[in-house]
Amino acid sequence: MTRTLTKDTISSVGKTVLLKGWVNTVRAHGSIVFIDLRDRAGVAQVVATNELAKDIKEEYVLEIEGVVKERPAKMVNPNLDTGAIEIEAKTINVLAASAPLPFDIKEGMNIGLPTLLDYRPLTLRNEKNKAVFKIEETVIDSFRTTLKNLDFREIQVPTIVPTATEGGAEVFKIDYYNRTAYLAQSPQFYKQMMVGVFERVYTLAHAYRAEPSVTTRHLSEYTGLDAEMGFIESWEDLMDTCETVIKNMFADVAQKCEKEMKLTAAVIPQLGDKIPRIKMREAQKIILEKTGRDHTKEPDLEPEDEKEICQWAKETHNSELIFITHYPTKKRPFYTLPDPEDPDYTLSFDILCRGLEITTGGQRLNNYQKLLENIKKWGNKPESFTLYLQAFQYGMPPEGGFCLGAERIVKQILGLENLREASLFPRDMGRIDQRFSISDDE
Amino acid sequence: MTRTLTKDTISSVGKTVLLKGWVNTVRAHGSIVFIDLRDRAGVAQVVATNELAKDIKEEYVLEIEGVVKERPAKMVNPNLDTGAIEIEAKTINVLAASAPLPFDIKEGMNIGLPTLLDYRPLTLRNEKNKAVFKIEETVIDSFRTTLKNLDFREIQVPTIVPTATEGGAEVFKIDYYNRTAYLAQSPQFYKQMMVGVFERVYTLAHAYRAEPSVTTRHLSEYTGLDAEMGFIESWEDLMDTCETVIKNMFADVAQKCEKEMKLTAAVIPQLGDKIPRIKMREAQKIILEKTGRDHTKEPDLEPEDEKEICQWAKETHNSELIFITHYPTKKRPFYTLPDPEDPDYTLSFDILCRGLEITTGGQRLNNYQKLLENIKKWGNKPESFTLYLQAFQYGMPPEGGFCLGAERIVKQILGLENLREASLFPRDMGRIDQRFSISDDE
Repeated sequence: MTRTLTKDTISSVGKTVLLKGWVNTVRAHGSIVFIDLRDRAGVAQVVATNELAKDIKEEYVLEIEGVVKERPAKMVNPNLDTGAIEIEAKTINVLAASAPLPFDIKEGMNIGLPTLLDYRPLTLRNEKNKAVFKIEETVIDSFRTTLKNLDFREIQVPTIVPTATEGGAEVFKIDYYNRTAYLAQSPQFYKQMMVGVFERVYTLAHAYRAEPSVTTRHLSEYTGLDAEMGFIESWEDLMDTCETVIKNMFADVAQKCEKEMKLTAAVIPQLGDKIPRIKMREAQKIILEKTGRDHTKEPDLEPEDEKEICQWAKETHNSELIFITHYPTKKRPFYTLPDPEDPDYTLSFDILCRGLEITTGGQRLNNYQKLLENIKKWGNKPESFTLYLQAFQYGMPPEGGFCLGAERIVKQILGLENLREASLFPRDMGRIDQRFSISDDE
Repeated sequence: MTRTLTKDTISSVGKTVLLKGWVNTVRAHGSIVFIDLRDRAGVAQVVATNELAKDIKEEYVLEIEGVVKERPAKMVNPNLDTGAIEIEAKTINVLAASAPLPFDIKEGMNIGLPTLLDYRPLTLRNEKNKAVFKIEETVIDSFRTTLKNLDFREIQVPTIVPTATEGGAEVFKIDYYNRTAYLAQSPQFYKQMMVGVFERVYTLAHAYRAEPSVTTRHLSEYTGLDAEMGFIESWEDLMDTCETVIKNMFADVAQKCEKEMKLTAAVIPQLGDKIPRIKMREAQKIILEKTGRDHTKEPDLEPEDEKEICQWAKETHNSELIFITHYPTKKRPFYTLPDPEDPDYTLSFDILCRGLEITTGGQRLNNYQKLLENIKKWGNKPESFTLYLQAFQYGMPPEGGFCLGAERIVKQILGLENLREASLFPRDMGRIDQRFSISDDE
């Protein structure tokens, strides 16, 4: 007999069906037992005799043959898609048993982050936790679809690299056949090289940061949604493209994840007609005027500044997102293009969303000689960048790009407290799958 | 003025257009110069005066304004999509110069593998090399589309792992906050855990093998197309699903990459109605009968056996692909399900295509107790698999999956000599971007 998914039972009233799934709940009621059976499509209620349902417990994996019955109108369960029917079990076959649950997985994210992660294969069975990853999948699909429609090509980019991409110490070393290699901090160099080949490229690249502290906003391994495009007229083309990507993402989540958004009480971030674009120095002045905090000499926005300026954008532009542009040249990587009108600042941007950076981007130096000079000026050796430099030596158009952090976007859409909740298996200083135990300490 | 792509010039006869691209070829002819300009859409011929085209060389990046003219019928170039027109240049603007080329990039893959890779950003500009990656992109898209249509969910799986996935020494170590972590040899454990959550999942996961030798068939970092499904009726469901994936891939490549297939003189592997399925022991007997080579006691097929049995499949079943099933239990990882009818052999399979393994898969142990026993039997510590074991402890349906190597599929479709040609930036013992120089040796 072919399996029927729970959601398809409602069109099978009177028929015998074969359901397969996990026991979501089980409650005895006199001589009968009610089982809510969960499969990938939803939940359906099964009624069985005590005898048939003997020893059945939560999270058991069952195969149930039964007849679909319509429930009386007053008995319809409005909380279930299949609430208008129930299945009268004829046979129950246990495909796999479950150990007693260590806690109630219906608590969702309320059980505390360490437990949530210590029991990831179990806690992800909760429908709210599952909703997070439906939204993440939709965000990623949307990114790909928007860029494909704009004639971008998808590429596969290596993650084992010969040199630390962005400089700095926050890089993981690999023992590579008795040499030292590194985990890529971003696919930056590779997507840039490929502009010389395909003009417009994107990649879904895992990226790695050896963050030396545990915060709610960092992961040691994250999913970068990276795009890069050549033959731009101006760096504003990059912001326009990035804005289109984000608008489509939000629209796709609203449309395709209606159920998940409702379940998690999430609200899509507000977007005006156009996301406001202001220079970092302007943002600092606004913050000074608003709060009296003088950060106008700082080379970057502090986390509290990011929250403040987002609040301002919402109040004045009806937008929960804002572009911050023109970061100082000294604070950006060597490949960033300085503003010709004010070379101390770059043609670069971040997007902040509800107080958190979700995107970074900018135009790049495409002139081979200037790039070579900058590599030296930033204290690097050109011979560490031979392949990268080739792409520019043999003709590279004006180009730039951006990177969106998939987990951060999901975090901000859902209002999650910790970025780890938006990663199936988050990695940080204190955890790879399991927390490091004291006996592992060196 | 808005840019026109080369392919769109043919519908702009008589109009002034702005083209942007790279100089594919440039040849002086008396007082005029012919420039073949290349962009992401193709190539178009530009005619310019000597003066306008002064100093222009191959791979220069140009912006050209000009008028589209129809060519006389006898002058039409049949080798160009835009062969019926040419552009009479009015202005030429150099966006970026190029150094003199070290070799003729029109040689494509004929310039020898070391040079091909030593100059990857340059050699990829060749249209045949680009075709390889159009086909790779199509293969990957097709994988995703087929599985999405079968109700599979896409997941993001970590690549930093706490333990060597498949066992063995071929694993890269990472210095992880002063501890040792590893690069995942496959997303195996994570996709299995997620069957307990989503039932059907797939992931595009970079996977890492510290192959201690350089062969034409191995990469140290490759793209795995991984799928896993629960509630299977039998392990044959896995082979059926895998066969559907591959059939659709080949059909998509044939349909969407017609131009690229022609350009590279590639031929889609022949598929009969159904890919033949034979046991490893049967394959060895066939090889013995055909060649007199007695490998019937060997625990695996040798590379020469793989070629021989593919030849047999083609001759007897009109199929260039073949499933080899029932590999010995001892040679497979601890999670593989033994055949209940003959526990020395497993319910596992490989697919060979034109003499090379492109897929591996099988049904897994889903019973917690048996899995625990096997982990010990294979010499592993259960405490290294705490998270993985949880997924089974709390109820896992019968399940299995498979992995296709993206680069290997592309290699076999195109008949490439070396797997490295199917990777944008291949990694191996002797190379990360650049070959290791002697001065780097330790």
